[in-house]
Amino acid sequence: MNSKKFEVAAYPKMWEDLDMDVARFDKARLMLGEAYEKLFLSQALRPEKMAYFDDMISEIFGGRIKEILTVKKSGKPVVGTFCVYIPEEIVVAAGGVCIGLCGGSPGSIPDAEKILPRNICPMVKSAYGFKAGRICPYFQAVDFVYGETTCDAKKKTWEILDRLVPTYVMEIPQMKRARDRALWLEEVKDFKAKVEEISGSAVSEDNLAGAIRLINRKRLALQRLTKLRANNPAPISGKDALLIEQIAFYDEPERFAAKVNELCDELEDRVKAGKGVAGDESPRVMVSGTPMALPNWKVHNLLESAGAVVVNEESCIGTRYFKDLIDEDGGSMDEQLANLTDRYMQIDCSCFTPNDERVDQVLQEYRQSGAQGILHYSLQFCHTYNIEEIKIREACEGEGIPYLSIETDYSPEDVGQLQTRIEAFLEQIGN
Amino acid sequence: MNSKKFEVAAYPKMWEDLDMDVARFDKARLMLGEAYEKLFLSQALRPEKMAYFDDMISEIFGGRIKEILTVKKSGKPVVGTFCVYIPEEIVVAAGGVCIGLCGGSPGSIPDAEKILPRNICPMVKSAYGFKAGRICPYFQAVDFVYGETTCDAKKKTWEILDRLVPTYVMEIPQMKRARDRALWLEEVKDFKAKVEEISGSAVSEDNLAGAIRLINRKRLALQRLTKLRANNPAPISGKDALLIEQIAFYDEPERFAAKVNELCDELEDRVKAGKGVAGDESPRVMVSGTPMALPNWKVHNLLESAGAVVVNEESCIGTRYFKDLIDEDGGSMDEQLANLTDRYMQIDCSCFTPNDERVDQVLQEYRQSGAQGILHYSLQFCHTYNIEEIKIREACEGEGIPYLSIETDYSPEDVGQLQTRIEAFLEQIGN
Repeated sequence: MNSKKFEVAAYPKMWEDLDMDVARFDKARLMLGEAYEKLFLSQALRPEKMAYFDDMISEIFGGRIKEILTVKKSGKPVVGTFCVYIPEEIVVAAGGVCIGLCGGSPGSIPDAEKILPRNICPMVKSAYGFKAGRICPYFQAVDFVYGETTCDAKKKTWEILDRLVPTYVMEIPQMKRARDRALWLEEVKDFKAKVEEISGSAVSEDNLAGAIRLINRKRLALQRLTKLRANNPAPISGKDALLIEQIAFYDEPERFAAKVNELCDELEDRVKAGKGVAGDESPRVMVSGTPMALPNWKVHNLLESAGAVVVNEESCIGTRYFKDLIDEDGGSMDEQLANLTDRYMQIDCSCFTPNDERVDQVLQEYRQSGAQGILHYSLQFCHTYNIEEIKIREACEGEGIPYLSIETDYSPEDVGQLQTRIEAFLEQIGN
Repeated sequence: MNSKKFEVAAYPKMWEDLDMDVARFDKARLMLGEAYEKLFLSQALRPEKMAYFDDMISEIFGGRIKEILTVKKSGKPVVGTFCVYIPEEIVVAAGGVCIGLCGGSPGSIPDAEKILPRNICPMVKSAYGFKAGRICPYFQAVDFVYGETTCDAKKKTWEILDRLVPTYVMEIPQMKRARDRALWLEEVKDFKAKVEEISGSAVSEDNLAGAIRLINRKRLALQRLTKLRANNPAPISGKDALLIEQIAFYDEPERFAAKVNELCDELEDRVKAGKGVAGDESPRVMVSGTPMALPNWKVHNLLESAGAVVVNEESCIGTRYFKDLIDEDGGSMDEQLANLTDRYMQIDCSCFTPNDERVDQVLQEYRQSGAQGILHYSLQFCHTYNIEEIKIREACEGEGIPYLSIETDYSPEDVGQLQTRIEAFLEQIGN
């Protein structure tokens, strides 16, 4: 743990060059540092190897941006995305950088509400607000944004966002039959063409094969981390694991995979030694539902402050991002793109109808993670997860799994009420 | 106008046979009759030919249901739908009945909120609640329901509704390129197969051609009515016109078209005589946005009670339903289905991205209807219309069109506030 005061590093000159609102952003930087120190660095028995991820947060608005700008200067594409359905392998194959831009902060929401309706999802508002307010260096650094059609609010917000930054849209079908796969494959090819347009050269078969192997390694490292969390006592906190899953969306994938594996080595030693971050009596909770984009640590913080340990995130920023790998046996470009599309079609987002495989997946992850209860998390006004929650709830009732469903946004207003509900839920697990 | 007290006719025996909650439904019947008398029969200078539509309301839970059950007994399909994207021509070609089931009443919402989230669209909740509470004879009479994927809330609610009534889903693509049209055409063929499954016989080319001509006639009659409303003074109230647009979704199409044309004959005489339902100084308002399902007359009633006359509904229950016809020149089944799909792809629902043709359509209807202001109407939590409203608003500002945007549900709670805003809007038109 750092003994000096933690701070997110400032790069005012670079931010100015990126046409950011520097004065305002600098306040956000200080607030992020304070929150991080309070929520993360104060944790007892943290793994040593979390130091790398602490550094990633400290350089989130600086060092990593510099790396990205270097790639950009070399003529390679820098693509912003908002969803695990956009195939980052293609960007990596083009030598570029794929950045998950999802917004997890309440600070940018007032910027969005100047034009967007208030009663849409906070993640969509936060993301739009980051660009509108010029308070996200990643948004300022991208060549273009590739949105998708996974929900009503995102689909229609891209039309408005396109006025501020070039925004293309991948149509994600709503079912998973042969005709949907055919449409999706065409969308993947369009995405590849757009990425190639920026880099000015075609993605080669070899480069795509290499990118598929690389991103598979990243996903495998996250799978390894997830398996280690199944041990009791848990060798790492849920907050730290969520943080790593969040960093997965903006870090350089090769280095990130190596660092996650180094951490896993340490966690394996802990497991062998019977060491954990919490006692083996701590209630073990699995979180299931909508993504928690950085720096949205609200629910994990409430759970772990109340004595629980979070052992799994069945979420886009969580297992939904890394549970499936791409078949590496594809030779030709067509075979590789087909394998890629098949892998992406396995993602069980609630935007599909029906999506009953997600119910099975939740139960499977519950068993595999050694959890003792499920907290279903839905971002406010997220209709698809919110309605699909009915089926998750019924499945949990059927299996006798302690269950709590919450729908919340980024504001601190409901924290007291959530605290009370979470305490009752943990008591239910204890009994 | 009726001199005796208006009442929606009761058919308790038939309702019991349909497994309805008869006691509860009978109260709803009385309330509907009272509301209808107050809102419709009290109007001054109503066209004589509205008598037919008054009868349709009086027999909404009886006579029309009897007709539908007769069709059903003969082995023909009775299909419930929730959206103007489901091609009724195919049901009619099979000798069946297509019923628009959209829910427009607050009375059924508590039934839905027992299971569905509260913060989704009132129309979706109302529709689900009608089935859950067994308080809609149409829902009880259908062979199956055909939903679609036009919004998140509907898409996911069909999964839950399927437990109460067989519910199939048409995937409506989210863009309008060649690949989307190809997918859509396959969906239309699936729908045809499902309809044929019930009737036990294939739809013939001749029957489909006849059904296309028939539904075209129905849409043409509604177009004629719309054009007549462009006269000043308006020959018919907006409430009555909306009512007719609502009845279009459950009446027998041949008779309905004839009755709309009879009414139009009367309206033409009125126009020639310079007669109208309101003085030519009354502010003329066009309503644009989400559908107002029967008996949702809230906003029209507020507008016309405040002295305005509504002259156009740019809505699914409005021009979006009838502005486009199917090319009748198709010979083979494939040609006819292609023509049908092309027509349905012209519908400019906000579920598409982009959907800029709707902005043009709104401006065109504004000019054609002789309106003096636009009220944009969005059902609560309808993300796609609510976000697309940004573009409609900007277009109106650009053209200097007086504009008011409201987002509301079915409850009377916000009536006072809406009244104030509508009065200010009408004053703006007056100046």
